[in-house]
Amino acid sequence: MISRTVYRVKFFDTDAMAVIHHSNYIRLFEIGRVELLRKAGITLDEIMADGFVFPITEVRAKFHNPGKFDDELVIETKPAALTKAKMAFDYRIARKDDDLLIVTGHTQNVFTKIETGHIARLPEKYYDRFRAAMEN
Amino acid sequence: MISRTVYRVKFFDTDAMAVIHHSNYIRLFEIGRVELLRKAGITLDEIMADGFVFPITEVRAKFHNPGKFDDELVIETKPAALTKAKMAFDYRIARKDDDLLIVTGHTQNVFTKIETGHIARLPEKYYDRFRAAMEN
Amino acid sequence: MISRTVYRVKFFDTDAMAVIHHSNYIRLFEIGRVELLRKAGITLDEIMADGFVFPITEVRAKFHNPGKFDDELVIETKPAALTKAKMAFDYRIARKDDDLLIVTGHTQNVFTKIETGHIARLPEKYYDRFRAAMEN
Amino acid sequence: MISRTVYRVKFFDTDAMAVIHHSNYIRLFEIGRVELLRKAGITLDEIMADGFVFPITEVRAKFHNPGKFDDELVIETKPAALTKAKMAFDYRIARKDDDLLIVTGHTQNVFTKIETGHIARLPEKYYDRFRAAMEN
Repeated sequence: MISRTVYRVKFFDTDAMAVIHHSNYIRLFEIGRVELLRKAGITLDEIMADGFVFPITEVRAKFHNPGKFDDELVIETKPAALTKAKMAFDYRIARKDDDLLIVTGHTQNVFTKIETGHIARLPEKYYDRFRAAMEN
Repeated sequence: MISRTVYRVKFFDTDAMAVIHHSNYIRLFEIGRVELLRKAGITLDEIMADGFVFPITEVRAKFHNPGKFDDELVIETKPAALTKAKMAFDYRIARKDDDLLIVTGHTQNVFTKIETGHIARLPEKYYDRFRAAMEN
Repeated sequence: MISRTVYRVKFFDTDAMAVIHHSNYIRLFEIGRVELLRKAGITLDEIMADGFVFPITEVRAKFHNPGKFDDELVIETKPAALTKAKMAFDYRIARKDDDLLIVTGHTQNVFTKIETGHIARLPEKYYDRFRAAMEN
Repeated sequence: MISRTVYRVKFFDTDAMAVIHHSNYIRLFEIGRVELLRKAGITLDEIMADGFVFPITEVRAKFHNPGKFDDELVIETKPAALTKAKMAFDYRIARKDDDLLIVTGHTQNVFTKIETGHIARLPEKYYDRFRAAMEN
């Protein structure tokens, strides 16, 4: 499964070099990840209501070309790994018009029990949906 | 009581006009407010542990001159009103070097019980500290 | 002319009270304003290429109810005033599902020549498009 | 040379999990980097006035423990590599009180001529200051 989300760059995303501030791409990864999970039938709200969070433990990004105000960007998100304790995603952000490569990246999450703060094995119901999303 | 906090403008605070994005001044107001409260012996953590939050209900700002990357700004925060249900603050942000006026503003908070989500009268212990801070 | 833009609340828009941080609504105003201008045939890029910027000089907001992660919000933007030197907009942000009122607000811009940094009268071509947008 | 900068976590840095949003650590890396460069006698303003920018081309971060509102964090920044075309930094962010490890990370920049947008060799005057900073 690859999820594609179009994002129009906001003025507040830019910095004094007149390009997207690099920290904001990490937020675009989040937009892509949340959309992929939604398509897989998983919302953060449901998981949190069940007592789990899945904090990011690792992020990597390469910035290939600058994104600019008002650009339409396509955020491609792809599951990269899944166990009952963690999952990982790959990202590719490109300009919609001409597919100019802007950013590539990777994140890793661990499933954590809110109550204890410790890493926990994810309940079957989520794991099954995640796995279905990966295999699609 | 007037609280003064020096803030060095970050590159990520700027936008493509090479000035501080106007939304970020609202964050500088928060920096000023939190510092004033700390000086008054009030921390948000303690209030939240007691079951209260005090969300912002109103904000106003006038932008007089642009702040720029690496400027040192002085955030002046002054209590403007206080009842047991709400409080208000005034702000003045100026460049440290030459006191060039950058932004003036105003915010209002209400005290809210986390459990009910309703406006609540603030416990005496906080009210007394707030009032002492206002009268200083 | 009233412009309506739907915005899905991002996780990074929230704060430790589990609601949208109030400063982020000022950014939603910008999203609404940019969309209204686009519908009126005006892009910031074109204006900047002509040597103008239109910085915000004033913002006001009232926060009626908290917005939360994953909410779909409708940002309504309406021109409120227009002269050749400045313009103003009104905003109303409500939850899409049930029209729960989240935030109301107001901003004012002035037209400024980039070269001089001084307020300038806007060229006819933009003024006409702005006025047409207001009268629609 | 290791540069240490203390950063007090702001309320607006947090997210609905009541911890610092992971994207904001990338901004803390920038704070550390800018401070290190300042100590080395290098300001972004001077470099930009000379026609250069040095955009980030790569970032990596591992999130070990969550940072929270009002924590005082120590951002340690260390030059990791330097050529005339690029430089890299390592980061370690820990809680000031007890040195609890929060985040480790790495960034890489390339020197770019603003006019052409192409990678450029950095003028000697900056290179010398960078190298002196690295060797200290």
